Amino acid sequence: MKIDYDAIVQAGNRISAHINYTPILTSSALDALTGAALFFKAEHLQKAGAFKARGATNAVLNLTKSERINGVATHSSGNHGAALARAAKIVGIPAYIVVPKNANEIKKAAIASYGGVVIECESTLESRQATLAQVIEEHAATPIPPYDHEDVIIGQGTTAIELISQVPHLTRLVVPVGGGGLLAGTSVVAARYENVQVFGAEPALADDAYRSFQSGVRVKSHAPDTIADGLRTTLGELNFEIIKDNVTDILLVSDDEIVHAMKLIWTRLKQVVEPSAAVTLATVIRYPEIFNNERVGIVLTGGNIDPGNLPF
Amino acid sequence: MKIDYDAIVQAGNRISAHINYTPILTSSALDALTGAALFFKAEHLQKAGAFKARGATNAVLNLTKSERINGVATHSSGNHGAALARAAKIVGIPAYIVVPKNANEIKKAAIASYGGVVIECESTLESRQATLAQVIEEHAATPIPPYDHEDVIIGQGTTAIELISQVPHLTRLVVPVGGGGLLAGTSVVAARYENVQVFGAEPALADDAYRSFQSGVRVKSHAPDTIADGLRTTLGELNFEIIKDNVTDILLVSDDEIVHAMKLIWTRLKQVVEPSAAVTLATVIRYPEIFNNERVGIVLTGGNIDPGNLPF
Repeated sequence: MKIDYDAIVQAGNRISAHINYTPILTSSALDALTGAALFFKAEHLQKAGAFKARGATNAVLNLTKSERINGVATHSSGNHGAALARAAKIVGIPAYIVVPKNANEIKKAAIASYGGVVIECESTLESRQATLAQVIEEHAATPIPPYDHEDVIIGQGTTAIELISQVPHLTRLVVPVGGGGLLAGTSVVAARYENVQVFGAEPALADDAYRSFQSGVRVKSHAPDTIADGLRTTLGELNFEIIKDNVTDILLVSDDEIVHAMKLIWTRLKQVVEPSAAVTLATVIRYPEIFNNERVGIVLTGGNIDPGNLPF
Repeated sequence: MKIDYDAIVQAGNRISAHINYTPILTSSALDALTGAALFFKAEHLQKAGAFKARGATNAVLNLTKSERINGVATHSSGNHGAALARAAKIVGIPAYIVVPKNANEIKKAAIASYGGVVIECESTLESRQATLAQVIEEHAATPIPPYDHEDVIIGQGTTAIELISQVPHLTRLVVPVGGGGLLAGTSVVAARYENVQVFGAEPALADDAYRSFQSGVRVKSHAPDTIADGLRTTLGELNFEIIKDNVTDILLVSDDEIVHAMKLIWTRLKQVVEPSAAVTLATVIRYPEIFNNERVGIVLTGGNIDPGNLPF
């Protein structure tokens, strides 16, 4: 399947009965603080608490009968795992989810709550991949990777279709980049709109997408140590091919800036978002020369925090 | 002015240009947990982060020109103070706010952000009243108390008018009780509806409303020590007169139950609410015999937390 605007529109129709059409939130205080008009797409209010429900649901609904029969499997730092478990439950098949030991407990519990089977591994990409390969062999399950997959990228892109239809005359889109599923899908949608520039927001402590984008060569492994647990993944291959052609820039922020932005979203918007979601607002605050006086669409990607383990 | 349904409808019209018409939030997970259909009125998304904007705005807009001239004054554990400062700013007059030293810093900062003058005192009712009397004498300001006041009670009642119009066939309303402004106003509105029972939700560690309701004699002073900082006030006189005639019951919950409910609201609804707001859900969980299989309207009263000082 080709990853283009029409495929994303079709995916939106395919998944619409199974996901939330999330609202746009605004805050005059945050607009005043940033000197921009900010429009927050509330994907933390999405099913399973993150935009990941879109890609996972699209991928599962697109499986053939024979691909479905033994269930699906993935590795995930959490949100894709819960989303895939939920999508598998919709069609009544098993889901095997490989999760790094250091993933947050709330995310693991969410996977289990949808009937997913949680299998723990080390946090390195190598351990994730080896454990997943073993699971796939054992159960003959179909792998649905968290981001480096056509149907997943297409599904995540539906976020941008909605956001652009909800807010007229956007000039900037800012989404977090981890594996690059959301950023790739968003950039394909935005390519339709001449005046919309797309930025990836990335923790400086997990800067593989930044380095890949700057050098033109994908960084294939790194040792991320950021508080933004959803962004510790490594930029995908397919994702990088799309991102390097369609994204305006990747912008870095520190973990301190992420925590500060998270507090602002909590206290001003009164919304519980995870650190990975706050990377976006941190970026808008850090780079006023890019966002001042612009109409900025921001994706609040997820809200799956562990209240017993907060960064403040 | 008489405190009745019509006065509350009129107040709703008076303040509507200056407050948010807040949405209703739902959660299938919380419905499953409680065995009830829960409808959360999102007053933590109200202007200044709490329903208190309603009563304060109504009271200020109702002042005569001569009452306005030297500004307004109050004592408040925080949210009424910010709401009054904001209301005063709308009409361009000063606001003097007496705040207990142990009130949370975010609430004090909010008062200042609306141009209110913060005056600190001890946390006892006696100290609050003495300090306020001094401020009123010094500035010749008009007192707008946080709850024991006709226009304030009427203004808070507008929450229930909206909630009932947003959700058909409610059978229970649950609101926190501190001074009793919201509970009194809510009970007057609900008295119009035969099938709606109204409950006050109160921390066991600040049980003056419960004891007053049980004995029929208002408890005039107590030493509250609950985490629910917005509910450390003492039940008002006018409030008690209305509550004892119109409320079905006052129900108590422990601070542990409040914190548990607060975590549920944060992780399931993804909404930042303060402990005082979570007393409601804690009550629904604690008393299944009252709420099972009912359609329950719950007011999430405020979201002004200090992220550096959370109870978990």
